[in-house]
Parts: sequence; C-alpha cells; structure tokens
Amino acid sequence: MTYVLHYAPDNASLIIRLALEHRGLPYRTQLVDRAARAQESAAYLTLNPNGLIPVLETPQGPLFETGAILLWLADTHGNLGPGPDDTDRGDFLKWLFYLSNTPHAMLRLLFYPQKYTTPDHADALRDGLTGQIARSFAILDSIAANNPKWLGGTEASVLDFYLCALLRWCALYPVEADRSWFTLRAYPALEHICADVETLPCTAALQSAEGLGDTPFTAPRYPTPPEGSAT
Amino acid sequence: MTYVLHYAPDNASLIIRLALEHRGLPYRTQLVDRAARAQESAAYLTLNPNGLIPVLETPQGPLFETGAILLWLADTHGNLGPGPDDTDRGDFLKWLFYLSNTPHAMLRLLFYPQKYTTPDHADALRDGLTGQIARSFAILDSIAANNPKWLGGTEASVLDFYLCALLRWCALYPVEADRSWFTLRAYPALEHICADVETLPCTAALQSAEGLGDTPFTAPRYPTPPEGSAT
Repeated sequence: MTYVLHYAPDNASLIIRLALEHRGLPYRTQLVDRAARAQESAAYLTLNPNGLIPVLETPQGPLFETGAILLWLADTHGNLGPGPDDTDRGDFLKWLFYLSNTPHAMLRLLFYPQKYTTPDHADALRDGLTGQIARSFAILDSIAANNPKWLGGTEASVLDFYLCALLRWCALYPVEADRSWFTLRAYPALEHICADVETLPCTAALQSAEGLGDTPFTAPRYPTPPEGSAT
Repeated sequence: MTYVLHYAPDNASLIIRLALEHRGLPYRTQLVDRAARAQESAAYLTLNPNGLIPVLETPQGPLFETGAILLWLADTHGNLGPGPDDTDRGDFLKWLFYLSNTPHAMLRLLFYPQKYTTPDHADALRDGLTGQIARSFAILDSIAANNPKWLGGTEASVLDFYLCALLRWCALYPVEADRSWFTLRAYPALEHICADVETLPCTAALQSAEGLGDTPFTAPRYPTPPEGSAT
C-alpha cells in the first residue's frame, strides 16, 4: 500500500516525510491547507479528532501523533531505530517519548499560547517555557555527546529526524517573538546531528517538497513551499 | 532479574506498579523521598537526568518516561496491549503517545505552574490548561465509547492504567486549587474503565502499597501511604 501523508510545509509532518524518504517507502502527500484551517474541518477530524498535523494513512487506518507514527514505521519497516528485541530498545523508547512529551509538547504551548492563557499572560508563559525547552535540549546534548547508537549514531534513527525538526522550529517560530533564547551552537552534539542529517538524501527531498532551503537544520530560514503554508 | 521501581505514592510510578502487578512480574520498590526532594539528588539524576518519577531499573538499564516503560513492559512480557505485529498496534501507539504528550504533559504544567510562569499568571494558565485537558478527556471518552480492544477492552491494557491515573489526579490535585472543572461523570466511557480497573487485583495491590483507598479511580481520596509522600 502507498501511504498517504497529510501534511503542511514545515509542520511535524516533515519528520514523517524524512522517515518515509530515508527508508524509500511509497507514499503520496495530501496538503492540509492551514490558511483555510483545513486541520479543523470535519473531514480532517475524522482522521485525527485532535485536529493536529500529521496524519499517515496506513493499512491499520489513519495514524497520528508524530512519535507513534515514527515508531510504527520503524517497527514495520526496520532500519529506523532499535527494534523490539534490540538491547537498546529501552533507551530508544525513553528518549522518543521524551521528545514527544517534553520539548515537542512545550513547543505546542510556545507556538499557540492563545490556547493555554490570555494575551496579557503570554509573555510570562513564553519565558517559562523557553527556559524549560532550553533545559531539555541541554539534557539531550549531554546524552548525544556520549554517542549512543540511536541518537547521532552511524545510522540515522527517527530520533535524529524528530530532534532536528524541533531545533529548526525554535530558530524560526513564533515569527513575531523574541527568539534570542535559542541558539543551536549552545548544543554542539545536537548541532552535529543536524549537520549529519543535512547530508542525507531525505533532507534533499524535504527541500524540494516543502521549500525548506539547503540548510534546514543548521541554518534554518523560513520556508518557500510550492504549495500550502506553515502556519 | 527483579525490576526496581523508583516510586513515590500517587506519582506516575503507580501506573508502572499497576502494569507490573497485573502481569505478576517480579519487582521491588525504592522510595523516592519527595519531602527531601530526592528526585533532584545527584544519585537520582544519574537514573533520570530529568529528575522525574518513575524510573524502572531493567536489564537494559534505568528506563523512564511512563509511556516508554509501559510500552517496553508490554512488548517484553506481552498481554498488556497489542504487540508489534498486531493489527491494532497503530491505534494503540497513537493513543499511548497522546496520553503521554497531551493530558499527561498538560497535567505537569497544571501541577507545577511555577516552572512555567510567574505566580500572578498561574490562574490564567490553569484556566487554559484545564479547558484543554477536559477537551482531551472528551475525545478519549468518544473513542472509548466505541469499545476498541485496547482501551476499556475485555483485557486491561497499559492505556487503561495510564488513563485511570490521569483521571484520578484531576480529582485531587493541585490540593489548593479549584478543581470544579473536572468531574469523572462527564466521561461515562472513561468512568466505566475506572470501575473495571478497580476490580483488578493490581488495584488492590496498589491500595495496600500506596494507601490510595478502595476506590482510587471512581471516587479518589488523598493517599495515606505507609511511607513517603505524594508531593
């Protein structure tokens, strides 16, 4: 079966695209038109009742949650991270869940503060969140510096793809906010992973499909996608 | 090997305890003395650099992240949810990640707002978070009402255990906050799961080990643990 990736440029769907491309899996894309708030349409909510991007249509039905899709693809097709019987499986899983429920979850609040607080309180929330997100990157940097197989290892894993996207977004979004709290250079082991992932063919595919530029992770710039919009 | 569960009463470690007890797996517990902030000690940070409870010591080293530990136990021992080759695996994973990075992640902010905002902004954040958490429970309730195998199914899964704990905490914490936003009765399918899990021997074990009372999920009361403290 050809997978169907419901995507918007520079959204979390890019992480799934990297994994699909890296493994050479057959897929086609379906744009979610964020400018028309298509992610909140009745049709889209039947795919993901949470109204979030991405969704991947699979033989097991529509899957969502970036971490879940990545893990499902890794276990179904292999070569994207330690398998269920691998001795590194526990470490792989704990950091996959960590990416999902700590930096990624906090970025959701950072990017959409209006869902969580009132406008006059958004600055205070942003200050708190950015401190916590920076702390999570520092922890990840110390882990990656020890060269585990599954984060910055010889073979790219879904953890690498997930991490690169999170780092990219911190450099670019929210567009109107002060982003001086973040600099990739503060996390040398993570910067190294970004540079490695940029050499992969899957990143080249991402550039042509979503217009993310030649250095989407080490020196991100705003996307110029052939269709759709990031926000 | 006997697992070692680093726990505090009524912390997320209770979810791991339910899974271990339900499968009859050998484990011993190690109290994390929250009153002495032991979760921030150098010794504990070598187990989990994020300073969060639980940690499960395994042959693969110390695991953390509730969702990761649950999934690792389920895949290692079976009978706690759909396995890697099960046709329900995708659905199981997407809701496991959802519990981890949506209601659970938001509860972290609800319970520890001082990490994310300033005291004068905590009320605004709480209002936003509780609205989003209630929305996530409504979505889960509509899913559970359709009787999937892996959430409120005939055989308890780690999703059931995870969900019951999240619901319990909303009824009890933060101790000093207005909690009128939450009532389990608003989510009949989830209430049914709570009632089912309460009939299991693993819940009885939880009661004696952590002092959570006879109805820890359908009618929670504050714990009276034999050792340690919840906060």
